[in-house]
Order: sequence, then structure tokens, then C-alpha cells
Amino acid sequence: MIDIVAIPNLESYFELEHAPETVERLETPVPVIDLDVVEKNLWKWQKRCDSAGMANRPHVKTHKQIAFAKAQMDIGAQGITVQKLGEAEIMAKAGICDILLTYNVVGRLKLERLARLVKNTPIQTVADSKSVVEGLAATGSSIGRDLEVMVECDTGGGRNGVQSPDAAIELAKFIDSAPGVAYRGLMTFPAVGARKQSGEFLAEAKHRAEKSGLPTVCVSTGGTPDMWIDDGLESVTEYRAGTYIFNDRSQLQPEICQASDCALYVLATVVSRPTRDRAIIDAGSKSLTSDLMGCSGFGIDRNSGCVLSALTEEHGILDTRGSERPPRFGEQVRVIPNHVCPVVNLFDKVAISRGEVVRGFAKVDARGAVQ
Amino acid sequence: MIDIVAIPNLESYFELEHAPETVERLETPVPVIDLDVVEKNLWKWQKRCDSAGMANRPHVKTHKQIAFAKAQMDIGAQGITVQKLGEAEIMAKAGICDILLTYNVVGRLKLERLARLVKNTPIQTVADSKSVVEGLAATGSSIGRDLEVMVECDTGGGRNGVQSPDAAIELAKFIDSAPGVAYRGLMTFPAVGARKQSGEFLAEAKHRAEKSGLPTVCVSTGGTPDMWIDDGLESVTEYRAGTYIFNDRSQLQPEICQASDCALYVLATVVSRPTRDRAIIDAGSKSLTSDLMGCSGFGIDRNSGCVLSALTEEHGILDTRGSERPPRFGEQVRVIPNHVCPVVNLFDKVAISRGEVVRGFAKVDARGAVQ
Repeated sequence: MIDIVAIPNLESYFELEHAPETVERLETPVPVIDLDVVEKNLWKWQKRCDSAGMANRPHVKTHKQIAFAKAQMDIGAQGITVQKLGEAEIMAKAGICDILLTYNVVGRLKLERLARLVKNTPIQTVADSKSVVEGLAATGSSIGRDLEVMVECDTGGGRNGVQSPDAAIELAKFIDSAPGVAYRGLMTFPAVGARKQSGEFLAEAKHRAEKSGLPTVCVSTGGTPDMWIDDGLESVTEYRAGTYIFNDRSQLQPEICQASDCALYVLATVVSRPTRDRAIIDAGSKSLTSDLMGCSGFGIDRNSGCVLSALTEEHGILDTRGSERPPRFGEQVRVIPNHVCPVVNLFDKVAISRGEVVRGFAKVDARGAVQ
Repeated sequence: MIDIVAIPNLESYFELEHAPETVERLETPVPVIDLDVVEKNLWKWQKRCDSAGMANRPHVKTHKQIAFAKAQMDIGAQGITVQKLGEAEIMAKAGICDILLTYNVVGRLKLERLARLVKNTPIQTVADSKSVVEGLAATGSSIGRDLEVMVECDTGGGRNGVQSPDAAIELAKFIDSAPGVAYRGLMTFPAVGARKQSGEFLAEAKHRAEKSGLPTVCVSTGGTPDMWIDDGLESVTEYRAGTYIFNDRSQLQPEICQASDCALYVLATVVSRPTRDRAIIDAGSKSLTSDLMGCSGFGIDRNSGCVLSALTEEHGILDTRGSERPPRFGEQVRVIPNHVCPVVNLFDKVAISRGEVVRGFAKVDARGAVQ
């Protein structure tokens, strides 16, 4: 058990730019990330992985920052997950050397980039069809090194992935027999709330792979919403979660997190109070995105409890009806966004704080990284 | 009447970076902007403004590119519209000197930036409350120059703005009497489909302002969806449209535009065909946004007609049911996004083409510009 006292100094991971000293002095709109909350979120999850005997492979698509990726590694993560080559390139260049790219790499240009990357940094990747494997195999052969490939399984998520344990085994055998690639294991991005079903698919595929003489080194699942649920983890050896570092409004459920576990809010200012019913803030869809993620409205002001009933690009409309203390003209609000990952991707820099004290601005290293 | 033959060479406005020669060789996902279509869209609208005797003040929030802003000016626009100080700063630095900022400038830090900006470039701005005017007046007084201010009117849009012609006149008088600011006119962002109602509000406010001895130099309305409708333009002297330069799926209505008028598409690649029912492309919400804008689904493939039924951050799910020729694995698709403005804001650079020929990559100058 790692002692919470051993928390590294998170500030030391950043090259912080000068910023106003307190949150209330920041110009808006800007995402503010509270390191006190980040630390708690990172440690809590690392301990859970340690006690469950699962490798922790956090997804950096959420924070897109080298500093947080390195901190996650130092706290105990085995490696990181990325969703595109551009993220892999930036993280590899920064010295992170255990990277899983959970995305089919397709096409000559992208395979050439992968080939350049794996010369210096081992990158595991995934495939859900023979066509994808063929591209990877040709790449591995051309550079004289086997690329480690996991079979992506659609265990109910309805996105990429082979459709059955049978198909998973067939593709695993194909990888095993192809030159230039090596079969590493099974990977899935399960549907939210369907961990048990997903676990059954993985367990069956793993069992049959091993019966076929294919050692499954890794069974990797992911997703923040269900990360505290034990069901369906029996055969899982690795967990990929992204959002947990910050949390967001879509995770505000008793069994997942409280508002005090949300490490990122978008600081905004009330620029108009045209009627009693609404307050207009300077954060719209170009700061908060239109992602709903099952929520009603587009975000919530942490202080007043008012919900954003509508957004245009640079305006957010807070519904102030029923609020005991609706925000006044000129006042700052702190919006917990519905979905934190694409919010970070909209900003070149974010404010790093400890409570009300601002430590500085940090660059979002992989913002808009090419895929 | 300006002759269509006099079209300037749009390429000459850009500092283009080297790119592959044809669209099919581009790495995906990437927005592709076809200058042939842009030209038609710009000229068509400029002619409409000319024949209606309205000033054209295009909104640069859509393209966020200095090159297009300058081209719009050269084709005949009186000035440009921006939605935040960051956009104004970038456009002013590039030499554009007639800028309307249709946003309440609120708070000391932003007023200081406005003061720095107006020292070199005249910036008109707006206000919808005495509080906003007081900030602008103090700024104008401090630099010894009257800031031109328009009264923002909520003519049914339900966002910012004074709520009645009475309130508009009251605020106009307040501006007229305050030192450091000068009343310029009325501005609105009307609700879509409510031009007549909006026009009545503006006409009444203008009439009464003039009866009060307040000359209304400008009556400014905006919005691409209703730009071809004559109703409610009687008192309007200036039109602000943004989307019209590119168009998008939300504008695909017989009276507005056809698919062939869409100048921007997001080029993407099919990275998985896990089932007959769906094709997975490498453009998700971090390339297309989750904006619906009244559409069903999150974008449409121009070639196959397949609609994106769902997005995750880096994956788009094309519903291939009912399609006669659904896109195959590895094939490129051309997605017309629901809402083009926030799409451009996600990319550091875009591909500039003439049909299938790529001229080069262009920087999105004001992407993520601070507000």
C-alpha cells in the first residue's frame, strides 16, 4: 500500500507560466484545474487498481498534458493510453515509453508515422479486422520488429470491435500467424452499465484463446463511469480510465463522484442579466461543447446550482429560475461541464490551482494533435 | 454592379503551407475548404447586400482566418464582425480597421485590452445595460476618445439584449449622455424565422430614437439562416452573416443552400466496418462537435448520404442501413458537418482546395483566441 504522504509535488511536473495569484483575478472563460482534487482522484484510483491487482493505464485524451501523464506514471500507472497517433507522438517525445494506442491505424501515411514512432518507443496497438492487421504486419515487417497488437472486441459498446468471442479468436490466430505482428491480448471499450456482459465476452474469448495455445498477456477494459464496479473484472488485467482525473457533470452520481471530486471547472463571468429568468455568461459551445452525455442542459454553476439551458458559440444561458441567489452581473461562475475531455481540447492553456490560489498557466500539450 | 470576372485570386491571400497535391492524398481527419465554392458564396451575398443597399459586415467567427476576412473586405464588405476581443486583436493586428465586437465587454482586464486595441484601431462595440455602458464610458474617458456603442436588442432571440424598444431608447439616451461613449445605433441577433417580429422591434426603436433627437447611424441584424428573406429588413442598414462563407448541414434547405454550396467538408477515413449496419470513421466529436442545430444525427457523408448516428471523441458511427453503396474499409468520406463554425475552431490548420486539387494548408489564425 502506497502511503498518501508520498504524493509527489504535482506542481513540479509543469512548466507553469505566470498567472494572477488568485482564481477571482483570472480572465474568463478559462478552465481551472485544482491539483488538490486531482491528487485525491489519482491516488484513490491507483489504490483501487493496486488492491484489485489490475494494471492502471490512464487515458491521456482527457488531460492531454505531459505533466499529468508523467504524474500518473510516477504514482503507479503501468503506462498510458492514447486515442490517436498525434497524442502518441507528443507523449513519446516527452519520454513516456509504455503507450497503448487504442485505435485502428489505417492507411499508408499513418502506418509510416507509426513505423517512425516505434523505432524509439514501443507502442502497442489494436485491430478489429484482418485488413487492419495486414497494414500493421507490413509495417512491422518493414522495420524488422513485431508490433504488439490487441484484438478490439465490441462487447456491447456498438463502436469498433469484433462481434463475438469466436471472431476474436479467429483474429488472434491471424495475428499470431502473420509476420511483423505479435498477439498481445484482448481490448474493449464496454457500454456503460454493461460490465457483466462485457466481462463474459472477455472471459470466454480469453479462455478459448488459451485453449488454442494463444497466451493472452493482457485483457484491457476501460471507462470512468463503471470504474468502481467489480462485476465483470474477473479476467481483466488492465484498466483504462480517462475522465477520473478530473470528473465532470456526467459522473455526478452517488456511486461515482460528488461535486467536490470535480477537479476542473470553467470559470466564466456573467456579462448580461437581460431578464430575471436568465444570466448570460461568457462561456458557450466553444468553451463547453454541446456534449450532453445524458445530462439535461449544458453544464451547471457549482455555486448557484443554476443549469445552462442553452449555448451559442460564445454565450451560455443560465436558467436562474428557482435559484435563491442567482449570479449577478459581473460575477464569476464556476461551471462543471457535462463532459470534461472535449473541453480541455478547446483551450491552448489552463489555469492550475490549489483551491483559490493559482499556481500558473499550463499548456495543453496535445490540444488538437493530429490523428 | 461588381463584375464576377473581377474575383481576386483567393489563394494570394493565404500563406499556404505545403500539402499533398490532391484531396485523396490528404491525411484524415481534416477540414477541406473549396475556394471555388467560397468565391461563389461570397459574391452572391455581396451582390445581394449591394442591391439591397445594406452594408455587409461578415462575422469572422466562422472562418477565423485573416485571409478570408481580407478577401471579404476586398470583395465589398464594409468591415468585419468579431465575437470576442481575442478575434479583434488578431484581425486588427493583421490590418483590418473596421471591426464590430458584438459582445458586452465586461470587467477590468477586458476593458484594459479594449483600451489598448482602440488606440490603433477603431472598434465599435455593444451594450445591453447601464452597467456595460459604465465600463465602456470609463474606458473611453481614460483614453480620451469616445467609444462607439450600439444598443443590443433582444428581438426574440432570447440571449442578450434590452427587452423592448422603450428600454432600447432609455439605454441609447444613457449612452448619448455619458462621457467617453457615443451612441451609434441598434444591433440584434434575431431568432431564426422571426425576422418580421425583429424588424418591427428595430423599426419602432429607430423611429423613437430619432424622434428623441438621437440619430441612429446603424441598424445591424444578422444570421445566415434568414439572410435571403426580405421581411423585416426595412430599417436595417447592415447585415452580419458568418456561416454563409462555407454553409453547413443546418443550412441545407431549398431556400438557403444545396450540398454543392457547402464549401467545407471534413475529410475522414473508414477505419472499421464491424457490421453491415455501420461504418466507423476517424472523425468524432473532437473533429465535428456534438452540435445538432436542429439536425438528426451529427453530420452526413456527401458521397453515400449516410448519416452519423453517434459520435465519441475520435470515432464517428455512420449508419449504413439503406445505403446503396456504403463506404468500404479504408475509403475516404466527406462529411458535411451540422455546424461549421465550431468545427473550424477545433483545427490548427485546414486544407485549401480547388475541387480535387489541394493548394496547401492554411493556419486557422484565431483558433482558440482568448475571449
